[in-house]
Amino acid sequence: MRDTYRGRKVLITGGIGFIGSNLALRLVDLGAEVLLVDSMLPAYGANLNNIAPVRDRVRVNFSDVRDRHSLGYLVQGQDLIFSLAGQVSHSESMRDPMTDLEINCRSQLSLLECCREGNPDARVVFASTRQLYGRPRYLPVDEQHPLEPVDVNGINNLAAEMYYTLYHQVHGMPTVSLRLTNTYGPRMDLKSRNKGFVGIFVALALAGRKISIFGSGEQKRDFNYVDDVVEALLVAGERPEVLGRVFNLGHERPYSLLEFVDILRGLVPFEHEIVPFPADAAAIDIGDYYGDYRSFEEATGWKPRIDLADGLARTIRHYRDGADR
Amino acid sequence: MRDTYRGRKVLITGGIGFIGSNLALRLVDLGAEVLLVDSMLPAYGANLNNIAPVRDRVRVNFSDVRDRHSLGYLVQGQDLIFSLAGQVSHSESMRDPMTDLEINCRSQLSLLECCREGNPDARVVFASTRQLYGRPRYLPVDEQHPLEPVDVNGINNLAAEMYYTLYHQVHGMPTVSLRLTNTYGPRMDLKSRNKGFVGIFVALALAGRKISIFGSGEQKRDFNYVDDVVEALLVAGERPEVLGRVFNLGHERPYSLLEFVDILRGLVPFEHEIVPFPADAAAIDIGDYYGDYRSFEEATGWKPRIDLADGLARTIRHYRDGADR
Repeated sequence: MRDTYRGRKVLITGGIGFIGSNLALRLVDLGAEVLLVDSMLPAYGANLNNIAPVRDRVRVNFSDVRDRHSLGYLVQGQDLIFSLAGQVSHSESMRDPMTDLEINCRSQLSLLECCREGNPDARVVFASTRQLYGRPRYLPVDEQHPLEPVDVNGINNLAAEMYYTLYHQVHGMPTVSLRLTNTYGPRMDLKSRNKGFVGIFVALALAGRKISIFGSGEQKRDFNYVDDVVEALLVAGERPEVLGRVFNLGHERPYSLLEFVDILRGLVPFEHEIVPFPADAAAIDIGDYYGDYRSFEEATGWKPRIDLADGLARTIRHYRDGADR
Repeated sequence: MRDTYRGRKVLITGGIGFIGSNLALRLVDLGAEVLLVDSMLPAYGANLNNIAPVRDRVRVNFSDVRDRHSLGYLVQGQDLIFSLAGQVSHSESMRDPMTDLEINCRSQLSLLECCREGNPDARVVFASTRQLYGRPRYLPVDEQHPLEPVDVNGINNLAAEMYYTLYHQVHGMPTVSLRLTNTYGPRMDLKSRNKGFVGIFVALALAGRKISIFGSGEQKRDFNYVDDVVEALLVAGERPEVLGRVFNLGHERPYSLLEFVDILRGLVPFEHEIVPFPADAAAIDIGDYYGDYRSFEEATGWKPRIDLADGLARTIRHYRDGADR
């Protein structure tokens, strides 16, 4: 992997956000020439502290992926592009669906058009989401599962992912998509109240405040520590056999929300309560979800290395050690 | 049906195009209060001659569905909205994907948002397309078939259709989508060279010019005469059991392109040749397609009344009688 990335020109959209910044740190360590593009929109998770350790070893360009002109310029000459910029809140996509469309759907097509025009050989790795499956019809969910998103965010990501696959099929461009599940770890956005329960629970736990679990608490999820996701992205960025394809990430061991909370409480004290789903959250809840990542493992050998207890311990330690939230 | 539509306020986007104008004529006959919205974009099929028979009995508003402000005003007070405006060329969606997205994806979400804000009780019937299935994995294609569009147009229509279904599920809005297949008949756009073979073949036949069939000519399609499609739209606009659902249209008898050409030649003389697919058309061709419309028939009793020979005869007669093309 070091040989793949040393001296390579790599662009990351959303590069100052949670996953983007972790990827940037790793790429700098691997010797890549890294360009981070980020709009720094409040509430979207970007935080310059995320890249403090490598601030003088990366280039940063503040711009929005909705701006076609700057994007068209920035993609030129890149060897690899990681498309991570996104509006990731499901509930926010229902409140403001047009903005979600602009960022998650239109800007992805725009990125592909910029590459088609100015850099058709750049490999593009798209961070897709398990949200496009909707409510699982069976578990674990594999890539053949029907695509039945239950919110605007899921629909827009589905369209985006399809553009990436299509541009490989029709235009021969080297694209690949990974469907991410719950990702957690250092540099996750702890300020947001609408980006899924993991960040909310960790933030409340660190503050010693009570955690409210919606529903029964028995709903299951799979969790990937961010280092495992970064590894998956890097693998997707180098292997020839993944091109034009779509893969789930995931973890062999799903946990219920109550189990998640129990593990978290082993690290930091807090109380919790079980409360009914608010109506708006119930309407777009997907019940149990965990994914089958064997297809990606078979193609590349990737599998998650870090289990939830270890990953949460590292996460808590990161924030306890005084990192800015 | 007359009781359903008499005195009802009905908006049709794309109302001066092929299917929209045929629907308008029928709705006027049924006693509805009809408002036609059309952008009159060249190459999109609108033609004021289409509505000449009812010009003084409908209201016409020239505006583009991409214009959120006018759309938000126009939807107010409508009982029913038929969402037919679209960019329908598959090849054009590959040349100019951003425009296809603006019209077929973004404007559909915008229409739903306009209704959510200003008229959430209006029934909305969306004209979707069989294009979102992609290359059939089995025939006839039913609504459970995987959705694997092979062009940008198919992806954008898929996203749009999903918005319509979602807004029913989450916001309780009365929406329904029909997946149209090859529709033909009077008022179809005979000027276009990139909207599918039916219009091209009819135009060439009427001009006595040679028809070029791509591929073997054995590829099968199903064909709906426009009056049958208008009937389906009207049925979808009145039945309670269709809400929140998605249905195929189709015809019990598929024909190969060669059979289509033979029937057409029984009506008007021309020559034909078999030629290889051009590369850009081959990349997005779907092979054989014909749909299973039993789900819609079971829900509503609708089925096509007009077979291809009769429908083509009516079509040729319409244009022979001197209607403007």
